[in-house]
Amino acid sequence: MTHGSGPLDRDACLALDAQDPLAWVREEFELPAGTIYLDGNSLGPLPSAAPARVQEVVTQEWGAGLIRSWNDAGWFDKPRTIGDRIAPLIGASAGTVVVGDTTSVNLFKALVAALRMRPERDVIVSEAGNFPTDLYMIQGASELIGGYEQRLIGDSGPELVDVLDERVAVVVLSQVDYRTGRMHAMAEVTRQAHDVGALVIWDLCHSAGALPLSREDCEAAFAIGCTYKYLNGGPGAPAFVHVASRHQGVARQPLTGWHGHQDPFAFTPDYKPAEGISHFIISTPPVLSYAPLESSLDIWEKVSLDQVRTKSLALSGLFIDLVDAWLGDHVEVVTPREAGQRGSQVSLRHPQGYAVVQALIEAGVIGDFRAPDLMRFGFTPLYLGHTEVHDAVATLRRILGEGTWEDQRFHERAKVT
Amino acid sequence: MTHGSGPLDRDACLALDAQDPLAWVREEFELPAGTIYLDGNSLGPLPSAAPARVQEVVTQEWGAGLIRSWNDAGWFDKPRTIGDRIAPLIGASAGTVVVGDTTSVNLFKALVAALRMRPERDVIVSEAGNFPTDLYMIQGASELIGGYEQRLIGDSGPELVDVLDERVAVVVLSQVDYRTGRMHAMAEVTRQAHDVGALVIWDLCHSAGALPLSREDCEAAFAIGCTYKYLNGGPGAPAFVHVASRHQGVARQPLTGWHGHQDPFAFTPDYKPAEGISHFIISTPPVLSYAPLESSLDIWEKVSLDQVRTKSLALSGLFIDLVDAWLGDHVEVVTPREAGQRGSQVSLRHPQGYAVVQALIEAGVIGDFRAPDLMRFGFTPLYLGHTEVHDAVATLRRILGEGTWEDQRFHERAKVT
Repeated sequence: MTHGSGPLDRDACLALDAQDPLAWVREEFELPAGTIYLDGNSLGPLPSAAPARVQEVVTQEWGAGLIRSWNDAGWFDKPRTIGDRIAPLIGASAGTVVVGDTTSVNLFKALVAALRMRPERDVIVSEAGNFPTDLYMIQGASELIGGYEQRLIGDSGPELVDVLDERVAVVVLSQVDYRTGRMHAMAEVTRQAHDVGALVIWDLCHSAGALPLSREDCEAAFAIGCTYKYLNGGPGAPAFVHVASRHQGVARQPLTGWHGHQDPFAFTPDYKPAEGISHFIISTPPVLSYAPLESSLDIWEKVSLDQVRTKSLALSGLFIDLVDAWLGDHVEVVTPREAGQRGSQVSLRHPQGYAVVQALIEAGVIGDFRAPDLMRFGFTPLYLGHTEVHDAVATLRRILGEGTWEDQRFHERAKVT
Repeated sequence: MTHGSGPLDRDACLALDAQDPLAWVREEFELPAGTIYLDGNSLGPLPSAAPARVQEVVTQEWGAGLIRSWNDAGWFDKPRTIGDRIAPLIGASAGTVVVGDTTSVNLFKALVAALRMRPERDVIVSEAGNFPTDLYMIQGASELIGGYEQRLIGDSGPELVDVLDERVAVVVLSQVDYRTGRMHAMAEVTRQAHDVGALVIWDLCHSAGALPLSREDCEAAFAIGCTYKYLNGGPGAPAFVHVASRHQGVARQPLTGWHGHQDPFAFTPDYKPAEGISHFIISTPPVLSYAPLESSLDIWEKVSLDQVRTKSLALSGLFIDLVDAWLGDHVEVVTPREAGQRGSQVSLRHPQGYAVVQALIEAGVIGDFRAPDLMRFGFTPLYLGHTEVHDAVATLRRILGEGTWEDQRFHERAKVT
């Protein structure tokens, strides 16, 4: 994106937006007027069709259909049918994804299932900078089962190759780092782990809907992720879990609820795991929470993830170029400048990051803050253009130049990632 | 309800409904015209205020508020604030209930926490007729941790007193049996278990909103339950978990996600349990699914559970009387006739139960079926009157008398309980 004469100017951004093949998608979302929303990596915005779809579920399927809708409206099968719609977005095959519960609970299922597949091994590998709930769930599972050593890579610790050996049962990594946007080479890392006989669980929270994933990336492993960031499923929308076809039937998860039973309505006293991915469903699905996700998937099925990735890198590259040109003395870019190594966000370090983000929000540019000093900005090609990226950095420049942010500490609860 | 001259006739039912102190509540629900809904013990109907509340959450809180709503709309605290609204309905104190996840997952949390409080014991007691997912989750947890013996009471097996001894760590019972509607004396059973040093987990799925529970019932133990039956929270609405005040701080659950952390937004690498009941929250709450539950709780806060119980027993008693008078040769009443021993449903046994229930639904009377031969009918005083109970039994009499049900096997998936 950098030109000999510096980054793109606003007219050049307008010109690029005018010929953007994804420009039409912007109309599929409701965004408040006067807002530049750079936080779709935390909570995606409302699909325009979602309110009507939600009302349909509430008044028709529930209100009029009542319990008949468990069959007639397909409620019972939602974890599977929506899973099959998410599968192509994460490089997975049909029949390998179910949607329900939370990312944390799905990690617990996948982790215990994977550990059971390597009973003779006693090490779990993750990364120091993983999203904390992943580390916490690993700790909870380890403590419950007992006897596992944890090895953390990254940050100032060792590299993956340094910790991989024949004792490693499972490797749990986030493909895209929630703080820095740094991206793992998924297929390559999976191969490294498999080479020592370990299994891999990928957290795709910051990948799903942010970039294309291939069969090679995903079909070799377990994966989990949320649907409320780039997938725009709404606050607290249900999470997904993917189990590679070759692991199914072998992988046994411990939260053995009735919807994961071979025959849930036989009401027999002993748990018998359902065939295939259904064993990873626990119990009654959160019907209402699927509705906006369905509207969002209607949009996703009309766009190309390759186009999304191309535009995402153009937007994040433009952002970095503008920050370098205008704000190089004020902030540090902590996201990799190499396009192939970053996801769909850019993070800047600033000692007063929290206050600056508050001032940005006041000025209509919504990003977020991660302690102690990171300002995060998500680039979501479905509803953002080059001009908005330009204007966001211009606003940041004005705020940093004027010092119109107060010297305040991070004292109140930040936003949920 | 039985009078010398037989059960109430339709005019007497109309007269009772005309002076029903709960009659006004019927207008707070949307029910399809021409339907007598006797399945609120499976899925409660739509509160009239819910569609507007849901739209507010979707278009205002999410659409306009975006991530700001995690703080501004109280999303982050929903598990606690809604928990505090459910607490009085189950005889629990404020600060002892959180709402999220499913009943099955909440059972897993409570069960592991309780087992850890009795590390020297190795027996889990439940009942053969417990709702299967409870048994399945117990099996899953036992298998994961290892070393537990399971003892099942009831049906043709032993009584509770026969299996209680110093080896019993935890007793897991449903207060009201999902098949028969038979009710345990909660405080008494809890005392029996405590007398041998065991802990108790009550499944209140068929109790919450069906009958009043006292502090003595609930505050001594753990409890779990769903909000989509008598509480009318909508299909797949989030479940609750209650941890008695005296167990808090001691009880440690294993699904250690970031929302149960002492300081979720510090993003520290090690899990530290939050104070109090918050430790039983796992992760991002299902925001949208709380909305109808809030509308339902607005109604619950205006009614007396004692009035609900009185009317519930009147309705179920009338149903039994009419069945006895009209259908004694055709069906068997499997629910206790003693009012103090039943919840808020009545179940009838009939060899062609599945086909009969289908014929009833065709005729506008919605009940449900549980294999192999039980027809279940729920009595929900918020939106049902005596006249509807009368007309429902009259319809059943017509169907059984005419034989207008086909001899079909239970071959398709039944409704979700």
